[in-house]
Amino acid sequence: MDFDTIAAISTPMGEGAIAIVRLSGNEAVSIADHIFKGVGGKRLKDVPSHTIHYGHIIDPANGQTVEEVMVAVMRAPKTFTREDVVEINCHGGLISVNRVLQLVLTNGARLAEPGEFTKRAFLNGRIDLSQAEAVIDLIRAKTDRAMNVALSQMEGRLSNMIRHLRQTILETLAHVEVNIDYPEYDDVEEMTHQLLMEKAKYVREQIDRLLQTAQQGKILREGLATVIIGRPNVGKSSLLNSLVHENKAIVTDIPGTTRDVIEEYVNVRGVPLKLIDTAGIRETEDIVERIGVERSRQMVKEADLILLVLNFNEELTKEDEELFETVKGMDVIVIVNKTDLPQKIDMERVIQLANGHPVVTTSLLEERGIEELEEAISQLFFTGAVEASDLTYVSNSRHIALLHQAKKAVEEAISGIETGIPIDIVQIDLTRAWELLGEIIGDTIHESLIDQLFSQFCLGK
Amino acid sequence: MDFDTIAAISTPMGEGAIAIVRLSGNEAVSIADHIFKGVGGKRLKDVPSHTIHYGHIIDPANGQTVEEVMVAVMRAPKTFTREDVVEINCHGGLISVNRVLQLVLTNGARLAEPGEFTKRAFLNGRIDLSQAEAVIDLIRAKTDRAMNVALSQMEGRLSNMIRHLRQTILETLAHVEVNIDYPEYDDVEEMTHQLLMEKAKYVREQIDRLLQTAQQGKILREGLATVIIGRPNVGKSSLLNSLVHENKAIVTDIPGTTRDVIEEYVNVRGVPLKLIDTAGIRETEDIVERIGVERSRQMVKEADLILLVLNFNEELTKEDEELFETVKGMDVIVIVNKTDLPQKIDMERVIQLANGHPVVTTSLLEERGIEELEEAISQLFFTGAVEASDLTYVSNSRHIALLHQAKKAVEEAISGIETGIPIDIVQIDLTRAWELLGEIIGDTIHESLIDQLFSQFCLGK
Repeated sequence: MDFDTIAAISTPMGEGAIAIVRLSGNEAVSIADHIFKGVGGKRLKDVPSHTIHYGHIIDPANGQTVEEVMVAVMRAPKTFTREDVVEINCHGGLISVNRVLQLVLTNGARLAEPGEFTKRAFLNGRIDLSQAEAVIDLIRAKTDRAMNVALSQMEGRLSNMIRHLRQTILETLAHVEVNIDYPEYDDVEEMTHQLLMEKAKYVREQIDRLLQTAQQGKILREGLATVIIGRPNVGKSSLLNSLVHENKAIVTDIPGTTRDVIEEYVNVRGVPLKLIDTAGIRETEDIVERIGVERSRQMVKEADLILLVLNFNEELTKEDEELFETVKGMDVIVIVNKTDLPQKIDMERVIQLANGHPVVTTSLLEERGIEELEEAISQLFFTGAVEASDLTYVSNSRHIALLHQAKKAVEEAISGIETGIPIDIVQIDLTRAWELLGEIIGDTIHESLIDQLFSQFCLGK
Repeated sequence: MDFDTIAAISTPMGEGAIAIVRLSGNEAVSIADHIFKGVGGKRLKDVPSHTIHYGHIIDPANGQTVEEVMVAVMRAPKTFTREDVVEINCHGGLISVNRVLQLVLTNGARLAEPGEFTKRAFLNGRIDLSQAEAVIDLIRAKTDRAMNVALSQMEGRLSNMIRHLRQTILETLAHVEVNIDYPEYDDVEEMTHQLLMEKAKYVREQIDRLLQTAQQGKILREGLATVIIGRPNVGKSSLLNSLVHENKAIVTDIPGTTRDVIEEYVNVRGVPLKLIDTAGIRETEDIVERIGVERSRQMVKEADLILLVLNFNEELTKEDEELFETVKGMDVIVIVNKTDLPQKIDMERVIQLANGHPVVTTSLLEERGIEELEEAISQLFFTGAVEASDLTYVSNSRHIALLHQAKKAVEEAISGIETGIPIDIVQIDLTRAWELLGEIIGDTIHESLIDQLFSQFCLGK
């Protein structure tokens, strides 16, 4: 395909040692060459592919030096986009990298949309859609396991699985077609049914296996939305701090909410917890009061995991019981804290209220019980789980939804065969499954959806 | 020189398209090679310098794939540090780039200190100290002009000037030495005095010229600390917003103060204003109340420029007059706002209070008077100024202090010659000037100072 030349700053915004302006397209080298002055008059258009060159960026309009740079020239097709790619490495200042970008844009390149480099890699056939989606997962990965899932998807493990299933369906359909067209034998109809049934069941089984990894895959990818609740002074801040201190935390502001909600990621034995609104807990410990507030209720409602904290040194209160009521039907771990103090809580009642959910006793002050809590968290989400590296995980909501739809189409085909409806109806169902699976890897997908998918990327990727 | 191999993440922390782990040192290539798996078994140690290679980072401990990367190999001496340099370009995720860094560190590299790459460039003689300092200025530059100053310093304009002055002093000293040792002629003593005086005055004049650029250079580099003051509802927020909207603003939190102080940079006709505590103004417009508070007083005291806002539509109040009193002796621009409303203010009194400082009338509502205000700001700091590109600016406080000391030493030499003190005392003064100038470019500088200078750099530079 033939596209115009795009450019963007590909390093995160901020002060750093290196900032990169990336160009991709037919004119990438000539645009860079036009504003580059190398040592001894070297021209970028004459240099071999995959080489790096020292020089200065000069504004051709006034001859002014704009930056001291290293320029990497990579010619198609062995590049990220399969197009000519030039990367201009600047000293990491905001102003200078912006000026280099401006120069590139005024000299013939167009500002890339978010994800447009990866989109070109997809459109030029270097990677399929699920691999492109894995690129963004890799960038956003908050834990090692999430990274492994993304990496294996990027390397095409999921794609290969999907391709194999689509191939199976296609071959089956072709086989059936031949049998219908050339019914030379008496038992053709029976054989066709048998083959269809066998293959449809095989495809369903494989989709099922993939879907079984979905919950874990999603957790690994997005983190487990976790909310800590409890009355004031039961030790919510201490719990938060010990979870954060024991494990490396990454804090992110959710944009657009002006520090309203802060997320903190901690990695508990491979389970990425996304601790929500930890700022509120740290500052005020007033989540119980705010439970009445709509937003707090919403937070609890959308959580994947609730850590409900009680005080070992106090009798259960009406508020405590109400908290249990609030989180009914959710994944809850009950933490009875302050075992360093004399027992006043009725543990039998706690276990009764916990209603089968794990109950862990801790003394966060004396750092006791934290191991058990981490074990409980890990148990809850990796019961009998295998290591990430052993499995093709499905972690992306879009993929999960498509797999569910494909499974449904296959099941309709199966029940159609069972009830003996005409083969051509069954063929329609299987064709539909084939198409749905194709959407995962981008073989049968609408252009607007592609645009939407890539717009989630960061600029310069 | 021979150093160990260092490594660091050289791109800003954050989600981006590209993250780079940079290595420098004798072992850079072999360490990278040990964890790199290229296409077709290609080894980094065999590749030519300044080339780029696609492959994967593999953990040698378990054979697991860690990242898909492009690796740039640049061999000494044509590199940033004059050592072997390897840059591992990762997909821009926090986790993956950290894992690559960890692998590099466990396989023989040491984590670089902030600025250590640039320090090596200095220690290995690629750049001098003032050029190294310009690298950090370039990264931190907030406006185009600040960038130009840094860039010209990085290219060695200041260094060349300093070297020229040191050479002049050295030649003079040598000449004097010869004359003393070989007093073949009768008028030797007079000639020596004459030569000394002439050269010392030349050096003083040149240092003076450099120092004349210092104020502007410092402003260009650091921005003009600007505080907007005025009673509530005179239009402080409107002024702030129109300054920010007319000009591109960069907002920075000052670290360690938990959003207490926010700086915003705006570029007014080449003058970078560092608007201080704009958050407070935006939120509350209560700076007058807070004038009583110690911190606000401090802010005003440390400002380079005060924008004092009055209300055209109200009579002058006691608070207004107190504000004038507070900012006595400082650089002030008086802004009489709300000229869209009927005049109630006594302009004669305002001009009297302004006491020679510029007075600008504005209607920020109707966007009138903003040009005049910007002109006043520009006038105040660039009266008769030449363009940045025509001048060797001194912008760094350390350089300015050294120039002042060197000037003082030269002046002592001059008055010594005038009062006819022995030549060897004059020689001591000139030698001292020579040494002080040498500190600017790092020729005569103490190691601990070097460490301190480079520790201001960001990691990975």
